[in-house]
Amino acid sequence: MIRIHHLGHSQSERILWLCEELGLEYDMVKHVRDPLTRLSPPSLKALHPLGAAPLLETEGRLLAESGAIVDFILARHGQGRLQYAPDDPRFADYLYWFHLANGNLQPTMMRAMVVARSGLAPNHPLREAAQERLRKLLALIDERLAESAYLAGEELTAADIMSVFSLTTMRLFCPVDLAPWPSILAYLRRVGDRPAYRRAMAKGDPDLEPLLA
Amino acid sequence: MIRIHHLGHSQSERILWLCEELGLEYDMVKHVRDPLTRLSPPSLKALHPLGAAPLLETEGRLLAESGAIVDFILARHGQGRLQYAPDDPRFADYLYWFHLANGNLQPTMMRAMVVARSGLAPNHPLREAAQERLRKLLALIDERLAESAYLAGEELTAADIMSVFSLTTMRLFCPVDLAPWPSILAYLRRVGDRPAYRRAMAKGDPDLEPLLA
Repeated sequence: MIRIHHLGHSQSERILWLCEELGLEYDMVKHVRDPLTRLSPPSLKALHPLGAAPLLETEGRLLAESGAIVDFILARHGQGRLQYAPDDPRFADYLYWFHLANGNLQPTMMRAMVVARSGLAPNHPLREAAQERLRKLLALIDERLAESAYLAGEELTAADIMSVFSLTTMRLFCPVDLAPWPSILAYLRRVGDRPAYRRAMAKGDPDLEPLLA
Repeated sequence: MIRIHHLGHSQSERILWLCEELGLEYDMVKHVRDPLTRLSPPSLKALHPLGAAPLLETEGRLLAESGAIVDFILARHGQGRLQYAPDDPRFADYLYWFHLANGNLQPTMMRAMVVARSGLAPNHPLREAAQERLRKLLALIDERLAESAYLAGEELTAADIMSVFSLTTMRLFCPVDLAPWPSILAYLRRVGDRPAYRRAMAKGDPDLEPLLA
């Protein structure tokens, strides 16, 4: 039995999407952000001290951190799907793009969001540095996606499942114009055409246009 | 052949430490931050568009992202050391603490650093929110370390190797008083007593007191 605690408009969409791609049966408990503060609701704080989402409930325990949940589900139920094994020539690329998502892309978006909300002038060095870092990252991703259909190669992997949130839903919190990045836009259309992605978004966040593109 | 591009005072200390714990032979190329801006030097920007460190040079390619490098080295050279396998009862804990490091702890430190540098008053809601989030995370880590010697259990794993930087060297950039967290302090002393950690810091950042505690 797999139960996913899903917080609307959050990284937990990754886990719904992963389960849909793997064809896993799961139970979803939906939590909704405070409409005013946009923070995690008391229902999640009751489950985890950080009010974190997603939470995976399985094998008699709760597991937080989307990266951990993805690795856990792949190890238990992946049967080799959605990842490349150590002897595959794409293994290093898979690890790179998987870890770039939470190690770099998502914190860079968060940083751009925080400095934008700080009330600093748009030309303040902190804001300019945050924007420039984001621009470089998007250029790197766009360049990669000009040469392959998905981040780790020609097939969807968990590296994409980790990354797409920052390029779509996260833009609710940190507006980013993707118009300068045609390969990212084409990629998001490819993702948006996937039945598993559409099912996940329809279940978890039916109010969001799938791609926000 | 393994070559590690190490940036002083950065997350790349993780990779030196990992190699020392595994007893791997490696070649270190040292890069030094700009003394004024503290940014990555041109020598790293020549190697990677983001000027990222660490970089692992092996098997004819460069790999960035410390999380990816750790997973790559463990897969190639770990022989099961420093991690728990999927059938181990500590597997979920291992994944949780491994991914918390870059998915949560490090971005929270970065956020606290950015808002502290923004010139906002200490009681500005953005600064208070960043401090409160950091406090909750440190409380969670302290509570965990009150019950086990290392994050994933009684033995050192890559989860510790991912996490310690944020609790030590990162405090050069984001000062945090660890005095309220005795279990974290005891843990950092345990880490600081490890010969492999001492060797890594002596090679990579001999100017830093190992623990900054």
